[in-house]
Amino acid sequence: MGHAALETLQGFLVGLDARMKRAHKRGRVAHYIPQLASVDVHQFGISVCLASGERLSAGDAATPFSIQSISKVFSLAIALGRHGDRLWKRVGKEPSNYTFNSVIELEQEGGKPRNPFVNAGALVTTDAMLDAPDAGGGLDRLMDFVRTAAGDDRISIDEQVAASEYRTAYRNFSLAYFLRSCGNLHMECERLLQIYCRQCAITMNCEQLASAGRFLAGFDSAAHLLNPAQARSINALMLLAGHYDGSGDFAYSVGFPGKSGVGGGILAVVPGHASIAVWSPGLNAFGNSLLGTRALQELSEFTGWSVF
Amino acid sequence: MGHAALETLQGFLVGLDARMKRAHKRGRVAHYIPQLASVDVHQFGISVCLASGERLSAGDAATPFSIQSISKVFSLAIALGRHGDRLWKRVGKEPSNYTFNSVIELEQEGGKPRNPFVNAGALVTTDAMLDAPDAGGGLDRLMDFVRTAAGDDRISIDEQVAASEYRTAYRNFSLAYFLRSCGNLHMECERLLQIYCRQCAITMNCEQLASAGRFLAGFDSAAHLLNPAQARSINALMLLAGHYDGSGDFAYSVGFPGKSGVGGGILAVVPGHASIAVWSPGLNAFGNSLLGTRALQELSEFTGWSVF
Amino acid sequence: MGHAALETLQGFLVGLDARMKRAHKRGRVAHYIPQLASVDVHQFGISVCLASGERLSAGDAATPFSIQSISKVFSLAIALGRHGDRLWKRVGKEPSNYTFNSVIELEQEGGKPRNPFVNAGALVTTDAMLDAPDAGGGLDRLMDFVRTAAGDDRISIDEQVAASEYRTAYRNFSLAYFLRSCGNLHMECERLLQIYCRQCAITMNCEQLASAGRFLAGFDSAAHLLNPAQARSINALMLLAGHYDGSGDFAYSVGFPGKSGVGGGILAVVPGHASIAVWSPGLNAFGNSLLGTRALQELSEFTGWSVF
Amino acid sequence: MGHAALETLQGFLVGLDARMKRAHKRGRVAHYIPQLASVDVHQFGISVCLASGERLSAGDAATPFSIQSISKVFSLAIALGRHGDRLWKRVGKEPSNYTFNSVIELEQEGGKPRNPFVNAGALVTTDAMLDAPDAGGGLDRLMDFVRTAAGDDRISIDEQVAASEYRTAYRNFSLAYFLRSCGNLHMECERLLQIYCRQCAITMNCEQLASAGRFLAGFDSAAHLLNPAQARSINALMLLAGHYDGSGDFAYSVGFPGKSGVGGGILAVVPGHASIAVWSPGLNAFGNSLLGTRALQELSEFTGWSVF
Repeated sequence: MGHAALETLQGFLVGLDARMKRAHKRGRVAHYIPQLASVDVHQFGISVCLASGERLSAGDAATPFSIQSISKVFSLAIALGRHGDRLWKRVGKEPSNYTFNSVIELEQEGGKPRNPFVNAGALVTTDAMLDAPDAGGGLDRLMDFVRTAAGDDRISIDEQVAASEYRTAYRNFSLAYFLRSCGNLHMECERLLQIYCRQCAITMNCEQLASAGRFLAGFDSAAHLLNPAQARSINALMLLAGHYDGSGDFAYSVGFPGKSGVGGGILAVVPGHASIAVWSPGLNAFGNSLLGTRALQELSEFTGWSVF
Repeated sequence: MGHAALETLQGFLVGLDARMKRAHKRGRVAHYIPQLASVDVHQFGISVCLASGERLSAGDAATPFSIQSISKVFSLAIALGRHGDRLWKRVGKEPSNYTFNSVIELEQEGGKPRNPFVNAGALVTTDAMLDAPDAGGGLDRLMDFVRTAAGDDRISIDEQVAASEYRTAYRNFSLAYFLRSCGNLHMECERLLQIYCRQCAITMNCEQLASAGRFLAGFDSAAHLLNPAQARSINALMLLAGHYDGSGDFAYSVGFPGKSGVGGGILAVVPGHASIAVWSPGLNAFGNSLLGTRALQELSEFTGWSVF
Repeated sequence: MGHAALETLQGFLVGLDARMKRAHKRGRVAHYIPQLASVDVHQFGISVCLASGERLSAGDAATPFSIQSISKVFSLAIALGRHGDRLWKRVGKEPSNYTFNSVIELEQEGGKPRNPFVNAGALVTTDAMLDAPDAGGGLDRLMDFVRTAAGDDRISIDEQVAASEYRTAYRNFSLAYFLRSCGNLHMECERLLQIYCRQCAITMNCEQLASAGRFLAGFDSAAHLLNPAQARSINALMLLAGHYDGSGDFAYSVGFPGKSGVGGGILAVVPGHASIAVWSPGLNAFGNSLLGTRALQELSEFTGWSVF
Repeated sequence: MGHAALETLQGFLVGLDARMKRAHKRGRVAHYIPQLASVDVHQFGISVCLASGERLSAGDAATPFSIQSISKVFSLAIALGRHGDRLWKRVGKEPSNYTFNSVIELEQEGGKPRNPFVNAGALVTTDAMLDAPDAGGGLDRLMDFVRTAAGDDRISIDEQVAASEYRTAYRNFSLAYFLRSCGNLHMECERLLQIYCRQCAITMNCEQLASAGRFLAGFDSAAHLLNPAQARSINALMLLAGHYDGSGDFAYSVGFPGKSGVGGGILAVVPGHASIAVWSPGLNAFGNSLLGTRALQELSEFTGWSVF
C-alpha cells in the first residue's frame, strides 16, 4: 500500500472511531462475569496490520480487554499444527445451528463437536493442543504462541477473570463430561476446564491482537508459526463459524473471516491484505460485538476487502 | 384371596419359573459395570406380596441383585412426601421420547427433566430428598425408608458397585452440571453423584423388593410411609415412564405400573392387589429385563390384573 | 351399583355441573375453525354409562359438539380390529414429547408416528382402517362403528366443519406427504385428508359419546365390536398419550384413560366400571378441555375410580 | 491472464480431465429419478470462464446434464434482485446442520428456512421470484435470466425429468405445506412444486453453466443482471451452504464458493477471477459430485484461487 493510500485508510479509521464513539445503540456488555460486566460500554478501538508491515490504529486500540473465545483461534492453530488433519477425527469442520454451548448438538453428533469454535469443539482442541495427559505446561505453549505471534512478551492472563469463570463454568463442565463419556477428552475435566478458563482470560489490546493475527493473513513473516495451507483452513472455519449463530450474517455483510469473543473483541483476517482487531464491549443478539461488527462492515465497504 | 386361589397362583409361579429357566432368548447382561457384567444370565426369581399379607415366591427369589434405577421409586417417594406438589416445579410428570441419559431432552426443556425416572429427574429428586445442602446423612434417610418398607434391616449397599459406577459416571456428571447451570440442583455435583451412585447400588432380593413395594399397592399397613394419593401418583408415573423407551410397550402388554433397573429387576404394582418383584439379569433392547417383562406379561394374563 | 349408590352419583353429577357452570376460569375456545370459535364457552355437560347398563347425565349432556380428535379412538379400534398387532409396524405405541402436529418427531422416527393419537399416527390408522386404496366407503365403516357402539343411528358429520378444516389443513398435509415420502401411506394425500377432516367433524353429544365408549370399558355387551384384549390396549394408549403434552398430568390427577378433542370433549374409560363423556368448550394450555379435565378429576376423587 | 498463463491453465485442465477419467472411485449416480439414474458415471467435464473473457474447457464440457439444485442460485439472484434485503425476512442466511430436505429444521425455525439452498429455502425464493400469485410465466423469467447470463438461447428444460420429479416430490410437498401453514408461501403448493421441479430440470452443459455464472464473479459485463453487492452476498451464501452438510469440507478444501446439484454439476465462483462449471455424475456421501469436488480442489491448489 502506497503512502497516500495509507493516509487515506488512517483517515477513514479516525472517522470510523468518531462515528462509533457517537453511536447510540451500543449493545449490552456481557454480564455473567463480574469483571466483564463492569467494562465501560462506550469504548471502541481498532487496529489494522497490513501486508507491508505497517500498523494503523484508532480509538482505544491500546486498552486491554479479555479476548475470551478469540483464544479458540490460537489453540486451534497449535492443535492443527501438531496433529494436522487427524484433528478432524475428533472435531468437525462444519457450521452449527445451535448456540455455542449447546449439548443438544453434541449429543446429536455422537460426541464429535461440529467445529472448533463452539465451546465443545474448543474443549477438544485445547485437549489436543497439549502433549500428553500429564503435560505440566499446557498454557505455556499457548502463551508462547500468542506472544510470538504478536511479537509482544507482555501479554498475560487475568487470573481474576479466569477464577471467576471457573467458579460458574457449570455448562462447560457439562460439555466436558459429555465429551469424556464419549471418549473424546484425554484430560481430567477439572484440569481441562482450569486451562480453558485461563485461556479465555488472556488479556490483549487491539494492537497486540491485530499483530497476533498476522500469521493467518498469509504474510511471509508468519510462516514459521503455521503452514499457509493450515492458516487458510482456519480462515475458512472462521468464516463459516466464527460468529456463532450470526456467522452467516457476518459473512454476508462483512465478507471476510473473523472470530468474536464475548469480551467485545473481534479478530478479522483479510487474506493477503490485513489482520484486523476491533473492540467494543457491547454485544448484539448473537453475542458478537455490535459496533465491532458494524465497524468491520464499514471498513469492508470502504476498502473492498470482501473476499467475495 | 382364598386358600385355593393362593395355591393356584403359587402353582402358576412355579411353572412360570420353570418356563423362564428354560428360555433360550434371555437378553444381554448390562456390561458397563464389572460387577453387573459378571452376573449369571440364567437366573430368574419372582415374589408376590398380596393385599391379604401373604407372600408367594418362586425361583431365585432369595438371591440378591443390584436394584439400580428401581431406587428412583424410593427417592421419589421421600421427595414427594417431603415437598408435595412443589416437587413438580423442579421435575415434570410427563413421559419421555429420549433415552434415559439424554441431555438433548434436558436442554430442550430448559433444565427441567421430563419425569423422575430419567436420570436427570432422578438426580433432582435425590437432591430434593435431602433436607439441606449440607445434610450429613443423605442416604441414611433412604436406607431407613427402604428397610422400613421392606420390613428388613439387613438391606444394604454394595459399595464396590457404587464406587465402580462413580468412576465412570461421566454422563451423569454431564447431566448434573447441566442441571446446576440451570439452578436446578442445590448440592455440589460430586457429592450428589456419590449419593446417587450409592443409591443405585442398593442390593435386594425379590422377596425384599416385593415387600418394599407394598406401600405403593395401597395396602393399609403401608399408609404411614406415604399418603395414598401420592402413592397413586407414583404408580401413574411408573406406568407412563417406568421402562424408558419401552414404557408404552410395557403398559400395552402388561397393563400395570412397574419400574425396571439395569440390574435386571422390576418392581411392579397392582393397585389394591399385589406388589411384585421379578428379576432376571438379561436385558431387552430397551434396557429392561427381558424375561422379567415376559413373566409379568404372563402373570397379568393369568390373573387378569391389568388395570385396563 | 345399587339404587342408593346411583342416586348418590347422580347427585354428585348435578352438583358438579353447578360448580362447573359457575367457574370463572374456563379456558379458551379453539379459534382456528370458525364453527368451533363461535361455540359458547359457558356450556358444560357430562354423561356416565355404568357396567350395570344405567346412564346418568347432567348439564348440557344433550348438546351436540364436534368430537374432533376423539374420533382417533374409533379409527384406531377399527384399524386394530382389522390388522391386529401388525398395525404397530406402521405406528408406535409410545408417548410423545412433541405437539400433536409436530413433523420434527415424525422425521426423527423415520416416518413412523410415535402413537395413534398424534396427528401423524391418526393419519396412518385412518389409512389402515380402509380396506383398499380405492375403497369407496372409507367413512361408512367408521360411521357404522360409531353408530353401533353408541346405539344411535342419528350420529352424523358436520360437513361445514369438515370443509372448513380441509381448507386450512396445511400442517396435516405436510404430515401426510411426509408419511407418503416414507412409504407409510397407501392412499393419496388429498383423499386421505378429506376422509380425515370428515372423521374429525363427527358431531355427538355427551350421551351418545358415553354410550359409544362402552366397548372400551369391558362391558360384556360390547365384545362384538372389539376383542377385550385390544380394548385394553387402546385404554393403555389413551392413558399414555390421550391428552397430548398434558397426558402425564391427566394420568397423575385423574388416574384413568381418556382422549380429548379440540372441540372440548373428552371420552374417558374406567375399565370394568364406566364409560364417561364430558364436554366444555374452553381449552387449557395443552389443548384439552379445562373444565372437562377438572370435572373428571373431581369425579375420580369422589368415586375412587383411579386405576392406580 | 497472459497467453502463457492461459496455455498453462489449459494444459492443467487437460491433465485434470485425464486423471478424473481414470479415477476408480467415482461415487454413485443419483438413483431416485430414472433419467438421472441412467447417466454414465464415467463422464467428466470442466469449463472455466476468465475475467479476461476467455473460456477454457476439457473433457465432456459440451455434454448436457440436469442442473438440479444449481438452479437455486439463479432463482435466488432473481428474488434478491427483486426484493433486496426484504427477502431475508422470509428466508435466513445461516448455514444448516440438517439434510437439504429436513422438516425438523424448518419446524425448529418456525417456518423460516435457514438459507436459500436447503429445499425449503429454495421453495421460498422461487415463490418470491414470481411477481404475483397469478403470474403466468413464472419460469419464463428464470429461463430468460439463465439464457441471458449464459449468452445462449438454446438452454431448455427437460420436461421428462421435471414430470418424473414431480410425481415423487412427496418430501418437497411436505416442506411446501409446512411453509404454507406458517404463511411463508404465497402460491398454491401444487403450482409452486410444478415450477420448482421444472426449474430443477433445466439442462445445461459445462460451457453454458460456466458462462451463466459470470455475473457472480464480478466481471463488469454482468453487472446488468445483478448489482455487485448482491452478487457478493450470493457468493457468501454459497460458501456457507452451497454443498449441504459438506459445505464446511468444501470451504476448507477448495476455498471458494460453489453450489452443487444432484445431477453431478457444480457451479463455482472465484470472485474477480473465474466462473467455473464442473460435472461428473457420481456423488459423494454428502450428495455432491465426488470427482467434481476433487477436481476443484486440485484446480484451487494449482491456481492459488482460494479466497482464504
